[in-house]
Amino acid sequence: MIRIGILGYGNLGKGIEASVIQNPDMELKYIFTRRDPLSLDFRSKTAQACHIDDIESKKDEIDVLILCGGSATDLPLQSPKMAEMFNIVDSFDTHAKIPQHFENVDSSAKKGKHTAIISVGWDPGLFSVMRLYSGAVLPAGKDYTFWGRGVSQGHSDAIRRIEGVIDAKQYTVPVEKAVQNVRDGKMPEFTTREKHTRECYVVAEEGADLARIESEIKNMPNYFADYDTTVHFVSLDTLKKEHSGIPHGGMVIRSGKTGLENENAHTIEFSLKLDSNPQFTSNVLTAYARAAYRMSKEGSFGCKTIFDIPPAYISPISGDELRKNLL
Amino acid sequence: MIRIGILGYGNLGKGIEASVIQNPDMELKYIFTRRDPLSLDFRSKTAQACHIDDIESKKDEIDVLILCGGSATDLPLQSPKMAEMFNIVDSFDTHAKIPQHFENVDSSAKKGKHTAIISVGWDPGLFSVMRLYSGAVLPAGKDYTFWGRGVSQGHSDAIRRIEGVIDAKQYTVPVEKAVQNVRDGKMPEFTTREKHTRECYVVAEEGADLARIESEIKNMPNYFADYDTTVHFVSLDTLKKEHSGIPHGGMVIRSGKTGLENENAHTIEFSLKLDSNPQFTSNVLTAYARAAYRMSKEGSFGCKTIFDIPPAYISPISGDELRKNLL
Repeated sequence: MIRIGILGYGNLGKGIEASVIQNPDMELKYIFTRRDPLSLDFRSKTAQACHIDDIESKKDEIDVLILCGGSATDLPLQSPKMAEMFNIVDSFDTHAKIPQHFENVDSSAKKGKHTAIISVGWDPGLFSVMRLYSGAVLPAGKDYTFWGRGVSQGHSDAIRRIEGVIDAKQYTVPVEKAVQNVRDGKMPEFTTREKHTRECYVVAEEGADLARIESEIKNMPNYFADYDTTVHFVSLDTLKKEHSGIPHGGMVIRSGKTGLENENAHTIEFSLKLDSNPQFTSNVLTAYARAAYRMSKEGSFGCKTIFDIPPAYISPISGDELRKNLL
Repeated sequence: MIRIGILGYGNLGKGIEASVIQNPDMELKYIFTRRDPLSLDFRSKTAQACHIDDIESKKDEIDVLILCGGSATDLPLQSPKMAEMFNIVDSFDTHAKIPQHFENVDSSAKKGKHTAIISVGWDPGLFSVMRLYSGAVLPAGKDYTFWGRGVSQGHSDAIRRIEGVIDAKQYTVPVEKAVQNVRDGKMPEFTTREKHTRECYVVAEEGADLARIESEIKNMPNYFADYDTTVHFVSLDTLKKEHSGIPHGGMVIRSGKTGLENENAHTIEFSLKLDSNPQFTSNVLTAYARAAYRMSKEGSFGCKTIFDIPPAYISPISGDELRKNLL
């Protein structure tokens, strides 16, 4: 049994709990929290809640610690610190800061003789590895990543900060025609506006100036100004009823040519349709916890990414069975 | 430069030649053939044609030998034999015999201290690794593989053996409704007939009994009897004009549930649309030749499959650049 610890019990941590239950070779041992451990309401009978201050005392009882904090402030500090004490997996997703995060985690994981796998999830994560596979297989080609239709937390938050807004939900939506042009192997060049649109569902205060709110959203630099944005004002009731989920998804598509005269075209597409973005991310993290456990047993220490992990290491199925049934 | 040898110069071998040209870290050194080497018409200026009987004398000039023979009679003998002398990659695709092939190649590769990667291509190959990834990430789920629309060489050959048939081409076609049900997460159970149909384009001899030919095709056990099959009689001219390509493709779809109450549904889909089945397979083989080269340098000998290869090993891009640009 692989003994799992969870650090942070928000949406992602709760997803890990549910995911561990689906994996019979794993057992949840501890949920670490900054809150009062007695206040945590969780399901797993094998697990105990424990304050994060006591985490070091549990290090011999956990094979892999899955970090469920945020990339902005939690993981940059937690991952290097924890990698000295534990094998870890995190979902660090600030693309621009990944190289620095990798270096930080690598040196502490090597110091502590642990295996750390960072930036696990679907993007970064499964989408990244699909960009790698498709690029290696079709070197004379071009790849495209589309996100959505799905909820962007960052964009929803940005709308909520506007004066007069009570609540909001923002969906990122790929432009259907753009996707079709890519699938058809046309290898187009896109502006930001041509790839995605943004759909906003906004609850405004009574008497608020709706035209001003709409204009503030549509002209917000970085978040909305470069996109075709639609704004729908809805009641709080409607928002809760119709927009309470956190679905997401998207696709990585690469088209390329082969042959001495580049005479043949090929398209590789990987797509996801997810009811719950955090729960799916949790399931990817849990699978890579298995890889971290195995690599640590082999003495393969330091920081890894999804690019470095032999696919077989994330599966509970033996090599013989994989070859017999999946190959 | 990774020095590549090709064994067998049919469609697949020609595809390797074109593929090596697309990969600037590779160089084609030898094309080995059973035919008169002087009769080979090839493009690569770095390469020499050489009779297969002389292959052993070239073993210090080749880093990876890519085997381009067939799975029925060539590879079962060639792969174990060559793995003793060379690092090899093959596309062995007789699913039921993969475990035996693996054992045979493994022992000779270990004996010769070489790295051998078998069953590389798209199915087995990329489709297999997608079944693995999606199964590990969504353990509470079910996956489906659809093939086509594409040409099945085996089925085309079977039609050609019928009396009165001059030539024929058979397309395997996924049933659109079945695909849709899978995408919708319904996790259906299918009979063979419900998943794929078979479309045949047949050139008959003048005066042949078309009704008999059609009936022989439709009732052929294993090949057609379990499918809804349509037969179109066409002229040789039409067959050449409209059905001379060897396109293929298909998709691996897994749907599964997450959450403590299995309350959220997710769908992972990987699909290929290929103008040329053998050329795409060649490109996958070439990418894995890079992995075979690297693993042999690290002393990781024996037989491997796509499941065992860290994705980064098939890419010419450095770890730093991969993390910076693809993750």
